[in-house]
Amino acid sequence: MEVVIVAGNTDTARIDGISAAGANPDLLVHTPSADLEIIEYGQPIRAPVVPVSPSGCPTPAVVTRAVRELLGFEVISVDAGLARSTGAPTVNMDGTPGADIRTQEPVPSARAIFRTARTFAAALPVEELVIGETIPGGTTTALGVLTALGERAAVSSSLPENPLSLKHEIVEEALSVAGLEPGGAAGQPVEAVHCVGDPVLATVAGLVVGAIDADIDVTLAGGTQMVAVAALVRHTGIEVPLSLATTSFIAADETAAIDDFAADLNLDLTVTDPKFDRLDHPAADAYVVGEAKEGVGMGGALSLADRAGVSMTDVHERVVEVYDRLVADEYPVQA
Amino acid sequence: MEVVIVAGNTDTARIDGISAAGANPDLLVHTPSADLEIIEYGQPIRAPVVPVSPSGCPTPAVVTRAVRELLGFEVISVDAGLARSTGAPTVNMDGTPGADIRTQEPVPSARAIFRTARTFAAALPVEELVIGETIPGGTTTALGVLTALGERAAVSSSLPENPLSLKHEIVEEALSVAGLEPGGAAGQPVEAVHCVGDPVLATVAGLVVGAIDADIDVTLAGGTQMVAVAALVRHTGIEVPLSLATTSFIAADETAAIDDFAADLNLDLTVTDPKFDRLDHPAADAYVVGEAKEGVGMGGALSLADRAGVSMTDVHERVVEVYDRLVADEYPVQA
Repeated sequence: MEVVIVAGNTDTARIDGISAAGANPDLLVHTPSADLEIIEYGQPIRAPVVPVSPSGCPTPAVVTRAVRELLGFEVISVDAGLARSTGAPTVNMDGTPGADIRTQEPVPSARAIFRTARTFAAALPVEELVIGETIPGGTTTALGVLTALGERAAVSSSLPENPLSLKHEIVEEALSVAGLEPGGAAGQPVEAVHCVGDPVLATVAGLVVGAIDADIDVTLAGGTQMVAVAALVRHTGIEVPLSLATTSFIAADETAAIDDFAADLNLDLTVTDPKFDRLDHPAADAYVVGEAKEGVGMGGALSLADRAGVSMTDVHERVVEVYDRLVADEYPVQA
Repeated sequence: MEVVIVAGNTDTARIDGISAAGANPDLLVHTPSADLEIIEYGQPIRAPVVPVSPSGCPTPAVVTRAVRELLGFEVISVDAGLARSTGAPTVNMDGTPGADIRTQEPVPSARAIFRTARTFAAALPVEELVIGETIPGGTTTALGVLTALGERAAVSSSLPENPLSLKHEIVEEALSVAGLEPGGAAGQPVEAVHCVGDPVLATVAGLVVGAIDADIDVTLAGGTQMVAVAALVRHTGIEVPLSLATTSFIAADETAAIDDFAADLNLDLTVTDPKFDRLDHPAADAYVVGEAKEGVGMGGALSLADRAGVSMTDVHERVVEVYDRLVADEYPVQA
């Protein structure tokens, strides 16, 4: 079993008010590069910041790293199109950061990325992949893709109050620029990513299709961005069951409509509750009030801990350890 | 402890008759990318070939992979300047493949690569690094650097008969193009790499200096290319002891003058004999008659097996297993 974390950027994240995946808009661009370093080394190496939300909620990479330290699973980090260099070892998909989806062709190389990812996954000598993502602004591009495909137009948010009307406005403008109606890219998943998506969606969709080509078990680890990937895969015509592992915070978010999506897209859903309400610690408190919710494979990592019989108390202890190392003096947690 | 494998290319390898790190000159360019994939996955993923010498001797990556499967150590692969994409996750040093050293400035970004590698290593949260390399043509660039620094002009070869006079001719021409006398770059290690080296030498030297900055124990795992790195480090003015772990094949190669170098450069030398003469298998036979000898961290991996108390018989069994998987029908071992 290998955990794959696909990282990238989209300029869509720079739109005011849509993402909490960084302390401020200038720092947010470093988040995916820093997340990969936290997963790989337990701390940033090249990235100048530990990703936190504007209120100080630490990146979900802390949770995935904590579970990794407990279980020792292998991680393959993938650069789908990073805007900043990372010190984590990454497999390159020859992608570039996505542009704001309100511009023409925000992911011009969507087809090439999809193909490269598909070929890569199909060649992996493994039996099981668990795939997570890190891309600020990713729920907005996910909404773009779901709308373009004609699927349910629902997504979650890293903010406690989901700025849904703003996201819908952005997607509406993006579709208009692309000359697409809602549902206008049904059956054309790569076209949907090309016009209103991001390079991480192209990569993860390619990885899933490649894994299925090669009979590798695959689990999508995440929230509504991974729902968008599942939709992309369905629109390629693939009908085999797909698995989605997410957190209880996504399941509790009505705007994410995760059960409805599971029915729409025939997803085998695993929801894991990290029981952060019992922890009472800055590493966990913001999740309890609805921040962050998911990301960087958090839901998948928690499900792996559960499967391995590791208690949430052990996960809590390790989360606190990882967090305390990160907030030690030498790392600039806040801007 | 982490094993770091630094991979790159130099067009110097395209000169007829200087490298056995590929079945033919056209395939040799894929060797470092394929080596990283073998270390990471046990087989090529993107690379179109399993690296073998013209006579069919398998890449030393087979041995390092075998020991990795036995010990489970972590590997950080570094892209110092690869000419072909690799499917292994790599840390990028923003290097590019080196040009033929007989041209002007074969490694124009030597200083930037050295600095990036130094900063990277110094930030690693580890206690020990074992650093190997894979770059066809690397003994010729090593000879260039040793000569430019005014050190002993001796190097080993992946060929049973070391084409030493050809290498000396190439280095002489390279120095002449650079306007350097032998010893003309003494005390200027980055300049030496810039003029007659390769991007792997710049990277490994930077990693070693960064590790020393951060009090990380570092072992150079390799033959005369790693001797050249040790010389580069010495010419930065660093006097602390340096460790070199190599194979008995390098120690037995008089042209490598490894004991003399150990004295010249104050190297703590570990020589490990894989006892391949007892194996009688195509994975090992060519080594017994003097091919390949070392590379891709082989000597370091063998010393780690030894340190962990793993017997050479267990190493042999695993080498055969890795080799047999590689020569299974689906991989194009020969051109």
